[in-house]
Amino acid sequence: MTSGGATRDHGDPGDAPTVPPPLTEPVDTTRPSAAEEARTIAASTNTGTLATLTADGDPWASFVTYGLLGGAPVLCVSNLAEHGRNLARDPRASIAVVAPATEADPLASGRITLAGRVEAPVGDERGAARAAHLAAVPAAKYYVDYSDFSLWVLRVQRVRWVGGYGRMDSTTGAAYAEAEPDPVSPASAGALAHLNADHADALAAMARTLGGYPDAVAATCTGADRYGLDLRLTTERGIAYTRVGYAAPIDSIDELRSATVELTRRAREG
Amino acid sequence: MTSGGATRDHGDPGDAPTVPPPLTEPVDTTRPSAAEEARTIAASTNTGTLATLTADGDPWASFVTYGLLGGAPVLCVSNLAEHGRNLARDPRASIAVVAPATEADPLASGRITLAGRVEAPVGDERGAARAAHLAAVPAAKYYVDYSDFSLWVLRVQRVRWVGGYGRMDSTTGAAYAEAEPDPVSPASAGALAHLNADHADALAAMARTLGGYPDAVAATCTGADRYGLDLRLTTERGIAYTRVGYAAPIDSIDELRSATVELTRRAREG
Repeated sequence: MTSGGATRDHGDPGDAPTVPPPLTEPVDTTRPSAAEEARTIAASTNTGTLATLTADGDPWASFVTYGLLGGAPVLCVSNLAEHGRNLARDPRASIAVVAPATEADPLASGRITLAGRVEAPVGDERGAARAAHLAAVPAAKYYVDYSDFSLWVLRVQRVRWVGGYGRMDSTTGAAYAEAEPDPVSPASAGALAHLNADHADALAAMARTLGGYPDAVAATCTGADRYGLDLRLTTERGIAYTRVGYAAPIDSIDELRSATVELTRRAREG
Repeated sequence: MTSGGATRDHGDPGDAPTVPPPLTEPVDTTRPSAAEEARTIAASTNTGTLATLTADGDPWASFVTYGLLGGAPVLCVSNLAEHGRNLARDPRASIAVVAPATEADPLASGRITLAGRVEAPVGDERGAARAAHLAAVPAAKYYVDYSDFSLWVLRVQRVRWVGGYGRMDSTTGAAYAEAEPDPVSPASAGALAHLNADHADALAAMARTLGGYPDAVAATCTGADRYGLDLRLTTERGIAYTRVGYAAPIDSIDELRSATVELTRRAREG
């Protein structure tokens, strides 16, 4: 995890071009690290776009399905397809994955690039890779054992994460491998809707007392993860964004309610 | 446009591994060409994945938005971003675009790769490229004129189209540039639902008389385009697919009703 540091370098379309800064120090802006964000996005879907090299060394983008072994994408591609021939010739590859859209503006979506080299899994890893692909792509049972299809594991060396407008970072393959997907955010949509519908006063109190915006007049929760809540808030100075951290990280969506109750209690005491 | 020739080389998951052949010659299996299919997919969305080359010559996949100038993708990317730096250094690029999903199985989706070289548009083309990008990506108005963003037009030299399981073809940049997006298929979902709900008998008659399957006992329409209908049909020999062509190509969704009425009349006369 990392503290603070999210930059919004080009402004957020739809809002004012400049964002008012906090007036007091936010209490705890801990948020998932780039490696954690990347693992969460990788685990959010089973399709991506692979970049490989043609025989001429040109970059070739192609749609693929994948499963995950640890965080490593496992592909099952036809050796007759261009990307299959490319991988057999040159193992350098990257895969771009976009999180399922939650907003109309496509550039607000989180996305990652995982770059490295593919290897054909052997021994015990082959069975594990095959199972990982099949778990994510059930239809692969019809071709995974065809002689003209190959399994490839992408050994991730370098990771780029973009969280939407102006939130982005890079990390290493090692940090990515050690991180875990967030256990809360993929299941949080219902809880967010409930917080915003029924606990708007509590969110505004969090923004004022814990989030560094004592002049907040309203706040909505735009995200929840194992470390805390993302808040979008309104002040007379304009729209701003902040972060409030739970007393301690949580490990499942079932713990979100008690964590937000505790945040509310602290916000109203503060 | 092309006649026949769609191959299903690995079978269609969910169906029998072998597809029963027609018993009579289908009357007209004209369907959109690979170039037309590719133009239609390119026009179906405003997001794709770009493949570029890093300084080391490695392939780099990254999410992008695009507009279309003719069929050429117009990108607007930050010069500070990795893909922006890559394009400035080496113009070789390709873009993969996936049609919005209509089926649960991701490999049933149509997708394309457009490969070539990017150029910075100049003179009159710059304004046209800027307008094309903004028309497709309205939020770009917030950054299109920033000094750290560049417009790039992808000069498409080579096109790969995959229409789903086993339907695929390649074509040239010239054929792609000359083709048009299909005027019917993107707007056909409602008409297909109506045909399948209320005219199942007519579709089965088309499959029997015009589609080469006199033993068809039922048929559903899985697609409509300017040239005709895609049918999925049931026989005692198994599930099969065929194609029935209109009396003449149509230019808009408004002509689909009269074209299918004419097909029904011919099917019942036959």
